[in-house]
Amino acid sequence: MVSEAVADRVSRIADEMGYARSTLAYGLRTGRTHTVGVVIPDLTNPLFPPIIRRIERTLAEQGYIAILADSDNNQKNENALVESLKSRNVDGLILATAHRRDTVVSTCVEEHIPLVLVNRTIDAHSVTAVINDDEHGIELAVSHLVELGHQSIAYIGGPQDTTTGHDRYSAFKALWRTRRIKSHADLMLNCKAFTEAEGHRGFLSILRKGRKFTAVVAANDLLALGCYDALLELGFRCPADISVTGFNDMPFMDRLSPPLTSLHIPHDEIGVQAAKLLLERIDNPESPVRTVNLLPELIVRGSTAAPAMQKK
Amino acid sequence: MVSEAVADRVSRIADEMGYARSTLAYGLRTGRTHTVGVVIPDLTNPLFPPIIRRIERTLAEQGYIAILADSDNNQKNENALVESLKSRNVDGLILATAHRRDTVVSTCVEEHIPLVLVNRTIDAHSVTAVINDDEHGIELAVSHLVELGHQSIAYIGGPQDTTTGHDRYSAFKALWRTRRIKSHADLMLNCKAFTEAEGHRGFLSILRKGRKFTAVVAANDLLALGCYDALLELGFRCPADISVTGFNDMPFMDRLSPPLTSLHIPHDEIGVQAAKLLLERIDNPESPVRTVNLLPELIVRGSTAAPAMQKK
Repeated sequence: MVSEAVADRVSRIADEMGYARSTLAYGLRTGRTHTVGVVIPDLTNPLFPPIIRRIERTLAEQGYIAILADSDNNQKNENALVESLKSRNVDGLILATAHRRDTVVSTCVEEHIPLVLVNRTIDAHSVTAVINDDEHGIELAVSHLVELGHQSIAYIGGPQDTTTGHDRYSAFKALWRTRRIKSHADLMLNCKAFTEAEGHRGFLSILRKGRKFTAVVAANDLLALGCYDALLELGFRCPADISVTGFNDMPFMDRLSPPLTSLHIPHDEIGVQAAKLLLERIDNPESPVRTVNLLPELIVRGSTAAPAMQKK
Repeated sequence: MVSEAVADRVSRIADEMGYARSTLAYGLRTGRTHTVGVVIPDLTNPLFPPIIRRIERTLAEQGYIAILADSDNNQKNENALVESLKSRNVDGLILATAHRRDTVVSTCVEEHIPLVLVNRTIDAHSVTAVINDDEHGIELAVSHLVELGHQSIAYIGGPQDTTTGHDRYSAFKALWRTRRIKSHADLMLNCKAFTEAEGHRGFLSILRKGRKFTAVVAANDLLALGCYDALLELGFRCPADISVTGFNDMPFMDRLSPPLTSLHIPHDEIGVQAAKLLLERIDNPESPVRTVNLLPELIVRGSTAAPAMQKK
């Protein structure tokens, strides 16, 4: 449209006159804002800060900035936040809030908004996602407990409308059904949210049923902390009476009393992959849909031990 | 400019045609983006998520959204992030990254960008800030240790170019100089950053000097966790050999082994106040500069106890 010489001159004069480049005006002209929305279900869950930090850094290397929004585990908030981000013309979205059937996700897909899901995905697997191998994780936790000598094992799960809640519970049930472990319908409970309060409430109700067991597999670390609270409240010791395993290996889990045996997921790798895949989709909206399935690793700590002799 | 009837009609037709309101275009027209930049020094410090969550909610009630940026305790990053936020025409900034003399802050002031500092402030106190009463906090921690019978007390501080690092250290030194406690230059050390790694390194060097003491006051919780690591490494027990106090009472500090005695600061209140004061400054750039100084409260837990008889 204009010669390079003219463009250079305009740019030099603008500099001299003290004009700063406005990303806002630039965005309207190019259709790009170099801004990405990141929606997470719970900022105070220590799982997310290391992932977000890595997303931000990977985006920054390409000149992108992240708008972070916290839905507080509430689907209505999620919807409002995504609408607000869209009205700010974000170039793409990273959502850690997906539900198995998710109208927010399907609307974004219809509107051709570049999108990457993180930590959870949708049942259809029709959107690019960076997730953990939930089934493998639960198998590792249960195998560890079985090797220690546990036979009767309880399970505290998460919301069944999320893939993490559903797939971890399915994996546990499969191990029970194939008789690799003993469990019982009374010993399995899925909570309404992945929170300490829900884990506490749920595990209290299992403990109060009085059925014998020596270990509990929790579907994430916050639920496991709720199990700690319930054990303390009813006078049980961990691991002497009941062993506990978590999932995610959030920061600080090694410093708890007792330190939590958990499934470590690669927080940094999750963040880097999510950001890279989103940038790829922004540059090429036709890039193939992918599910990156990362392998968790069991970190054994003080919350699991061999069961006491026939006690409880 | 146009009659209400015409405006209504245009708006109705736009709706019917499926036009969504673009905050971006609206921003260029009105000079407002309803976007606020929030810069924090370390997203993985659990102190910040509850504050950020409350900032986001308070802003959202007024239709504002936050762009969060993590400077990783690095002043160069801070500068680049603030420039990037400014180029996105944010309506204001909340900075948790202030240094006692801070060119980023003074540039924002010169450019009349609405600004609120949080957690730390600048020496001149010439910018609205929501901070904690650092001096009072240190006095509470020391009084608690003195009441338990501690006489020789060590101190692990933070960077002296921050008000939190400087004011907490000053408060500790004042208590020593007025002979309310015994300490010694060998027992006081200021770290380069408020991190676990720095607390670990710093407290190891104090312990290795071999001077007698029975308690350590750490200038924040992450430094206190570093003290835990150093004690463990050299075979000391907490609190049997050395009592430890922290500052901030971050989430999960009650679950540590041992649970950390710390100064609780009102995370929710800090976030609400910071957001409200910023919205006030956006609406009225001439609103008076204020420093909101919130009172910390000592939460006594298992990391502090009476000193053992003349041991160590």
